[in-house]
Amino acid sequence: MSVLYKRVALIGLGLIASSMSLAMRRAGVAGEITGYARSVETRNIARDLGLVDHVCESAADAVKDADLVILAVPVGAMGAVMQDIAPALKKGAVVSDVGSVKKDIFASVLPHLPEGVEFIGTHPMAGTEHSGPTSGFAELFDNRWCLIVPTETSSDAEILRLETFWQALGANTKHMDADHHDLVCAVVSHTPHLIAYTMVGVADDLSRVTDQEVIEFSAAGFRDFTRIAASDPTMWRDVFLSNKEATLEILGRFTEELFALQRAIRQGDGDHLHEYFTRTRAIRRGIVEAGQDTDAPNFGRNTKPS
Amino acid sequence: MSVLYKRVALIGLGLIASSMSLAMRRAGVAGEITGYARSVETRNIARDLGLVDHVCESAADAVKDADLVILAVPVGAMGAVMQDIAPALKKGAVVSDVGSVKKDIFASVLPHLPEGVEFIGTHPMAGTEHSGPTSGFAELFDNRWCLIVPTETSSDAEILRLETFWQALGANTKHMDADHHDLVCAVVSHTPHLIAYTMVGVADDLSRVTDQEVIEFSAAGFRDFTRIAASDPTMWRDVFLSNKEATLEILGRFTEELFALQRAIRQGDGDHLHEYFTRTRAIRRGIVEAGQDTDAPNFGRNTKPS
Repeated sequence: MSVLYKRVALIGLGLIASSMSLAMRRAGVAGEITGYARSVETRNIARDLGLVDHVCESAADAVKDADLVILAVPVGAMGAVMQDIAPALKKGAVVSDVGSVKKDIFASVLPHLPEGVEFIGTHPMAGTEHSGPTSGFAELFDNRWCLIVPTETSSDAEILRLETFWQALGANTKHMDADHHDLVCAVVSHTPHLIAYTMVGVADDLSRVTDQEVIEFSAAGFRDFTRIAASDPTMWRDVFLSNKEATLEILGRFTEELFALQRAIRQGDGDHLHEYFTRTRAIRRGIVEAGQDTDAPNFGRNTKPS
Repeated sequence: MSVLYKRVALIGLGLIASSMSLAMRRAGVAGEITGYARSVETRNIARDLGLVDHVCESAADAVKDADLVILAVPVGAMGAVMQDIAPALKKGAVVSDVGSVKKDIFASVLPHLPEGVEFIGTHPMAGTEHSGPTSGFAELFDNRWCLIVPTETSSDAEILRLETFWQALGANTKHMDADHHDLVCAVVSHTPHLIAYTMVGVADDLSRVTDQEVIEFSAAGFRDFTRIAASDPTMWRDVFLSNKEATLEILGRFTEELFALQRAIRQGDGDHLHEYFTRTRAIRRGIVEAGQDTDAPNFGRNTKPS
């Protein structure tokens, strides 16, 4: 793969940005990578790791002469960062974000976008429950989706270049408009995270069951909730506040269904439960067939059967 | 390990029973293993696989002369099976179950227990989303918990023998009374399963987001719900109907908390969200430290970072 951008600036050096840097190097698509993080500690760790070619002392320094600028900060910080870097951006640069929502980010960054600079939203749908500059790895995006969400400022040529870039980082790409993006993510990501956080909080709070018991017996189903409930609190706070509308809509649907199942349990309506539980199996089969999960028992956590 | 039971009968030949048979052979703790399943197809598969030493044509045949009888059928079927085998049980036999609830099972089986036969409940907290006689593997119980729930008919000697048996199958054991067992399981297993089923059902039902999108983008959080929502519908129907009280209690707590978080989203109360999401991280750390999950990114589904 040849170089797609001579200079790439990463603003924010957490899980996604550090993985991007490693994946860019693996693919050879960036001539030079600069980086900036707000915290001195993160910048020092990034320097020690050699995570990027230059760790800069300000976001404006990092974006100078950059052809591609990636905003990899919490959703709530995007607008301020955009305002901060705007005067330092060169003409012809492309600014992109890797946030989990799009409408709200566009609303906060686009007013600050200077003439001659394009903005294209992206959302690499990959992650782990770990955060920070040491958590990145080059394979994070392999065979995962990266949604490409153009704005009115995006040109076809630059959309294509950014899409090629994400494919070089290992991702599959798909175009989506901001409204639909935010709804899809409310369903497959935001609401599941909120529910997982809630369930873990309830378990933690219950005086008649000890935390020790919750931890010891977690393999019975609870464990799968704790992984997603261990994700970065600041990132998720911002996601919920900024994708409020779609999240509240899906939550409304969720509680409606939950109350129907709860009533079926109370009334002993086994047919309703059985029918519901049978239907949900098909979705799982689709996910395994689509290569988005493994069918191995216990996710390969245990020794595999021979 | 020496033989603990000369003859063990498995009633039901699904995931748990087939894994038990393979684990018993690995450990050498059973002299002979008989088995019975209600469906002809399951019996034929078990015969073809050589899953047990003798596949019998009735539950009563299978338990004849057995020293240990394991009821591994859905919770709702336990009482009828107990009634069916009671006349064929030999004096001094121990009957046990591997169901996910205990109070309801005890209420349905104990009235049929003949003189001179003990009943001891067990609950191996291990499983996958697969079911049936082909889904078993010997390592299923390794380093997982098996809860031992004695009844008034259980003797200390037989409790100890059964506990030793489960340890030989790879499990860690812990004693619990039936009430506490059912509450703990409502928290770590039953309510999480119901919530996962609900979320998957909502996603499946939403006309503005296609199933294809849900499947493709599932890695963003949703995927972890689909695994548990793919579990056996009959088993789970029976679990909810028979652990009604504790499940409804925990569900009540869950919706209370969920509504509080929902209100925080609606009102833009970021501090409430951040505080809640920070608290839940500690539980996750406990689970990883307790060896009940791996800390590997993405559960080792992707290539690991070097």
